[in-house]
Amino acid sequence: MEINYKNIKVIGFDADDTLWVNETYFRDAELEFAKLLGAYETANKIDQELFKKEMDNLELYGYGVKGFVLSMVEMALEISNYNVSNKTLEAILNIGKDMINKPVELLDGVEEVLKTLSKNYRLILATKGDLLDQERKLEKSGLIDYFHHIEVLSDKKEANYSKLLNHLDINPSEFLMIGNSLKSDVLPLVNIKAHAIHVPFHTTWAHEEVSEKESNGKAYKTVSGLRGILKFLN
Amino acid sequence: MEINYKNIKVIGFDADDTLWVNETYFRDAELEFAKLLGAYETANKIDQELFKKEMDNLELYGYGVKGFVLSMVEMALEISNYNVSNKTLEAILNIGKDMINKPVELLDGVEEVLKTLSKNYRLILATKGDLLDQERKLEKSGLIDYFHHIEVLSDKKEANYSKLLNHLDINPSEFLMIGNSLKSDVLPLVNIKAHAIHVPFHTTWAHEEVSEKESNGKAYKTVSGLRGILKFLN
Repeated sequence: MEINYKNIKVIGFDADDTLWVNETYFRDAELEFAKLLGAYETANKIDQELFKKEMDNLELYGYGVKGFVLSMVEMALEISNYNVSNKTLEAILNIGKDMINKPVELLDGVEEVLKTLSKNYRLILATKGDLLDQERKLEKSGLIDYFHHIEVLSDKKEANYSKLLNHLDINPSEFLMIGNSLKSDVLPLVNIKAHAIHVPFHTTWAHEEVSEKESNGKAYKTVSGLRGILKFLN
Repeated sequence: MEINYKNIKVIGFDADDTLWVNETYFRDAELEFAKLLGAYETANKIDQELFKKEMDNLELYGYGVKGFVLSMVEMALEISNYNVSNKTLEAILNIGKDMINKPVELLDGVEEVLKTLSKNYRLILATKGDLLDQERKLEKSGLIDYFHHIEVLSDKKEANYSKLLNHLDINPSEFLMIGNSLKSDVLPLVNIKAHAIHVPFHTTWAHEEVSEKESNGKAYKTVSGLRGILKFLN
């Protein structure tokens, strides 16, 4: 299906795993967490339980490192049957602090793409992470001047994007979202008649995976790397 | 000094302790926390140390309940010399969950003021809390239809407000901020030549207190309750 990008006024970029590495750090943190609790359960079981705990707490804590750390602490208490040592818990807090302090590792082509597109479009960063974390990453990334501003969404569902478009005072057909998550950055946009381009990242959090059925027959493009966008827009 | 409100296009409202009770819940949480750790230190010492810990972690965690809970956990480990029980730590996590689940208690006059002002101005909620928390509170409050959108600021300093005005595409003289914190909702605005009205709340977090000197000779109004705003604007 041909997609008409002529009306685009604003382009939203997802941040984590679209502009810079993020999920990899969560995977590393989970490995470290499983190692710390190795006396109580297998790594596989800990991984599963942590995911369940995160899902249980998602409505309460939302996305981002702080909620992740709170879920790890809670799970460490439970899976150890309330026997985990204070030093292990401190190590868990430090996993979170290290994550927050990680350097920003840009993905391939990011600077070139932003530089090109920022000449003709208003670019915004649209993220469901923690605002402070994302501002810090944007600062470290050196990309701040390409973006008009950051939009933080508490979730990335259709209603959140509709609110965003209302806030930007534009029509759905004037908005293009670019991101690595089909579930969060692509399908909700297509469903509200906005545009989306999917740029997959090699690792996807289980929560972000969608079934084939959900993504079937939807009008969006997939490119293998961010530079691929420039084939459609410039 | 007379202030000219004629040019105002957008009015920003602080949320916590301006529209609804918040600080009181933090004070209650601190009391509960001190009680849980009563075996290790006096309530007064615990209070002081917790504030210090929050300030140490502020750059890392930012504002909001999740960072507050992470600071409580860290402090419990340290102040107990790594002897605090797993059950006590669980109780600390639950203090946080209870805070997030608290009902929204509107302050006096809020609905009337928003209803009146929303007819002639674009109203936004400008908060440095956690977006998810604030969206949840706004939902519970029944006030959601009065606001064009929520703006989350990672901090409320001059630079953050300048970014906000840029994002709203308005001049400083077209913006009025209303809030309970001199430090966060009033002085930075006055300093960038925007407008501000101060509506004090009975409890102020130590971090939000400012000295007389800082607030001397700045052009802003103070009203004793939210309804007082309607004397100047309607």
